[in-house]
Amino acid sequence: MKTLADIGEDALVHLLTRTLRRDEDVLIGPGDDCAVVRLPRGAHSLVLKTDTLVEGVHFTAETPARWVGRKAMARVLSDFAAMAATPRHALVTLIAPTSTLVKRVQAIYQGLSKLADEFEVRVVGGETSRGEQLSLTVSLSGYVPTRRWITRAAAKAGDVLYVTGCLGGSIRGRHLRFQPLVKEAFIIAEKLKPTAMMDLSDGLAKDLPRLAAASGLGWDLWLDKIPITTGCTLPQALHDGEDYHLLFAVSPSVKKQALMDCQALCPGLKLHAIGELTSGAKSGLLKSGGWDHFR
Amino acid sequence: MKTLADIGEDALVHLLTRTLRRDEDVLIGPGDDCAVVRLPRGAHSLVLKTDTLVEGVHFTAETPARWVGRKAMARVLSDFAAMAATPRHALVTLIAPTSTLVKRVQAIYQGLSKLADEFEVRVVGGETSRGEQLSLTVSLSGYVPTRRWITRAAAKAGDVLYVTGCLGGSIRGRHLRFQPLVKEAFIIAEKLKPTAMMDLSDGLAKDLPRLAAASGLGWDLWLDKIPITTGCTLPQALHDGEDYHLLFAVSPSVKKQALMDCQALCPGLKLHAIGELTSGAKSGLLKSGGWDHFR
Repeated sequence: MKTLADIGEDALVHLLTRTLRRDEDVLIGPGDDCAVVRLPRGAHSLVLKTDTLVEGVHFTAETPARWVGRKAMARVLSDFAAMAATPRHALVTLIAPTSTLVKRVQAIYQGLSKLADEFEVRVVGGETSRGEQLSLTVSLSGYVPTRRWITRAAAKAGDVLYVTGCLGGSIRGRHLRFQPLVKEAFIIAEKLKPTAMMDLSDGLAKDLPRLAAASGLGWDLWLDKIPITTGCTLPQALHDGEDYHLLFAVSPSVKKQALMDCQALCPGLKLHAIGELTSGAKSGLLKSGGWDHFR
Repeated sequence: MKTLADIGEDALVHLLTRTLRRDEDVLIGPGDDCAVVRLPRGAHSLVLKTDTLVEGVHFTAETPARWVGRKAMARVLSDFAAMAATPRHALVTLIAPTSTLVKRVQAIYQGLSKLADEFEVRVVGGETSRGEQLSLTVSLSGYVPTRRWITRAAAKAGDVLYVTGCLGGSIRGRHLRFQPLVKEAFIIAEKLKPTAMMDLSDGLAKDLPRLAAASGLGWDLWLDKIPITTGCTLPQALHDGEDYHLLFAVSPSVKKQALMDCQALCPGLKLHAIGELTSGAKSGLLKSGGWDHFR
């Protein structure tokens, strides 16, 4: 079977980009010095995010290639969900050994493109380079109505913390197969007006302190209320990471009816209240654990 | 000296982002799920580009770290120049072994940030991951007045080809030290209305056929007119790559006075006419050579 060294860079780029979908917002697609896309009408702001997957760190040589590509796209989509933003255009950077099979790279791009298509995201460019270790970086741009984004930093003491599903054990498959909660985030934003939101990628034990710190708050976790994946322990739910559920804070003044409406509009999700944000210094719990890329 | 493993991911990100400049267009900077930036007023389109540097491919362990960072930023700026677009916001992805010295990574970011500042580009986010080989990916967004971009694809037969300076021998230093021609590209765009433009990264022998193919044309190179770096040969000028000069096509109807005006406004550059674009199939010359990432 052919490798990247056999076909070279230009043929590879042609192979990877020839089936990409375009739409009327893509003014200049792959193949020129830069991509150019149409800006939305109305008062929007531009949203930008990049994320990277490295072989041996985020996936292995045995991970099916389509799922590798899918995951690279799914992770940035999950970040857009966390801001209640609409993803639109992606740039894809592939670093790969010259001995990599062309088939494998094509399968990676197929997985990536398929999920992009589902979310009406267009791949408008990218970059390829040789390197000793395969890595895949997706940079995504999109839009949010100005001042309608949801950051991590505007929560108040007393706000109730919610997660959108069970935590822990993602290594059994969820870390590859999760569905980014882009549409659900819009519903949550509209119905519950969260004061802060983020996606859980490094584990609740690592991510909740980040949200609390961004808002200058502490937290009180109701450990018996944390939804745990069947077969997992509480420490796994706190520390495993790669849950890709949304963690968000809601004012206690929000009515129960709004929660029920929100739940009804997101039938695949279950909203779980798991604690509250508190004033003052951070809680003693959750001081360590979770995923660190350099440790 | 401390390594990335010693300080961990959060401390590294804090170190790298704490000195980043912000301005009123950066609505949400590093630290949240995504960055959010203000869109320009008026009829603009969004310009997107990503580019990557890999240790052992684009630089070595001996390349001064500041120059590595500078080059990563300079290359994407050069692509913006090639579209006559204004760069504005960058996302930076670093993959590095855990044994990498913190000092080295800081120096890379300093080189990158300094050049970004010179061009009023703000670094608004990024990503870090461990990996076996150091790589640095910069994704840049910016703007161009709608329909005022310059692609590779709109040249006509008979258009004259120009380059902005001497080619060849970039390995002696230019590949690290070149100044991206963003402002010069605006002047060229205004004065000469190029029908096609690109930056020379892989060598004239590889890049000119790409421009010609994008426009559906052949070419006639005037070999005795190609400006060659002192001490280099013609084959080096054609094949070395990493010149980062602009190659552009200008209608023969453009007046000599416009060329002289353009030259006067770009005192650091010298515009050289090096050939013309022709109808029909591609020229026999330059069939191979130049830089290929996978060969």
